[in-house]
Amino acid sequence: MGDLLAAQDVPEQLLQAVRYSALGPGKRIRPWLVVRCCELPGGKRDDAWPAAAAVECIHAFSLVHDDLPALDNDDLRRGRPTTHKKFGEAMAILAGDALVMLAFELIAVHVHDAAKAKAISRELACGAGWNGMIGGQAVDMTAHQTTPSVELARYVHDRKTASLFAASCRIGAIIGGGDPDNTASLGRFGFHLGRTFQLADDLLDVTSNAVELGKSTGKDAPAGKHSFPACVGVEASRAEIERETNFAIEELRRFGGAAEDLQDMARFVGSRNY
Amino acid sequence: MGDLLAAQDVPEQLLQAVRYSALGPGKRIRPWLVVRCCELPGGKRDDAWPAAAAVECIHAFSLVHDDLPALDNDDLRRGRPTTHKKFGEAMAILAGDALVMLAFELIAVHVHDAAKAKAISRELACGAGWNGMIGGQAVDMTAHQTTPSVELARYVHDRKTASLFAASCRIGAIIGGGDPDNTASLGRFGFHLGRTFQLADDLLDVTSNAVELGKSTGKDAPAGKHSFPACVGVEASRAEIERETNFAIEELRRFGGAAEDLQDMARFVGSRNY
Repeated sequence: MGDLLAAQDVPEQLLQAVRYSALGPGKRIRPWLVVRCCELPGGKRDDAWPAAAAVECIHAFSLVHDDLPALDNDDLRRGRPTTHKKFGEAMAILAGDALVMLAFELIAVHVHDAAKAKAISRELACGAGWNGMIGGQAVDMTAHQTTPSVELARYVHDRKTASLFAASCRIGAIIGGGDPDNTASLGRFGFHLGRTFQLADDLLDVTSNAVELGKSTGKDAPAGKHSFPACVGVEASRAEIERETNFAIEELRRFGGAAEDLQDMARFVGSRNY
Repeated sequence: MGDLLAAQDVPEQLLQAVRYSALGPGKRIRPWLVVRCCELPGGKRDDAWPAAAAVECIHAFSLVHDDLPALDNDDLRRGRPTTHKKFGEAMAILAGDALVMLAFELIAVHVHDAAKAKAISRELACGAGWNGMIGGQAVDMTAHQTTPSVELARYVHDRKTASLFAASCRIGAIIGGGDPDNTASLGRFGFHLGRTFQLADDLLDVTSNAVELGKSTGKDAPAGKHSFPACVGVEASRAEIERETNFAIEELRRFGGAAEDLQDMARFVGSRNY
């Protein structure tokens, strides 16, 4: 991915802020999903890289903007200062903006099959858009205006997180030439995996600390966020994680043993140390 | 364009902030360019609307983010409170983000020819990206760190403004089925028109006032911005506008009388009341 971000003639501070935001330590779950969901229906790994990098750019953009003082106001991300702490608020806003453009540029330039490029661009724009990730963030951010409820927590989880996980899997399947059934199954797998991921994230916010997690913790409840543990408690949240993990794995059945590592990923995401 | 922004199931505050940002009073020069540059090589006006709306979404996004306190810190835009003054800073950041996604969604969903959708998406991402509009804004924002110069003012103008004007014209030509020569000519027309527009904007910042202009004025010099009038004076700026207007009109020669309204637009942009 570093190679794809080696741009010419880009203002130096912006380039550094973008590279810092996108190339820092991270789990890279979403691009990994793109690659594996491309291979599963028979696609080639090499064909998946541009879209995998694009999905990671969108994810990185969302972290940079969510961390801003006007939103979650976080100082720590992936064990390092957040982009605005390192480069200033203005450059962080612009770096996030540049990452979005870069995502769509990567697809439009490097995905050679035009029909696939159009379909991927659509998945990405819808998955991250006002009815997807950004919509979830908007509701999350105004959570203090409403009474916490499981329904609202679910609304936020589905949009803020599950939406881009689902898009990542569908994008991989599209590149790999998956038929509509395979693509839909992998999309549902990604959706339930995303729910699992966010449920675990909510729980870690309660049960972990900043050193273990590499980002600030204990912030959801004071901010009036609609977190699952706040609504239903820790034990019921764990049961929900178990259920969503099983839903995710169920969608992989049609792929048999070839999807073993995706099953492992679902179990890993559902059992992050808490 | 209002119809294209009548989304279902989008969080209410976000929807309102997006509509406020995109549908307020404005000159709509860029979408007009898309439509006319589509018609010029023989395209149908109706085919241009999704891309025209997308270009306006990108423009609206750039205004919302540029107006933020961390960037230009403007309270007034198009004669009304800026989006962050009306909806708060967090919602303004998210509304800008949502407008970008919406732009790429409009193209991926409503431009039916996949090859054209891919080409348009590329023009938009590159024209607005880190080597285009956002790159220009990054340099503009750090202008106080460097010595003002015509070269830097030109760098900022070319990226911050001319880049998206050029993309708008190229996008129109692509939809309209323009051959490479026509598309290149219209792109260069848009580029010189964009330069003319930004030169006039710099001049209006010096010579106009907020009531006439509908936005704050007299801010470039104190902010250490690389404006043309600050570097070369008002008279030399006017001469530069004249020259760029002529360059723009020259590119329209191949289209003869059919491009008369684009010529008029170049003259209008070059003679906004100063």
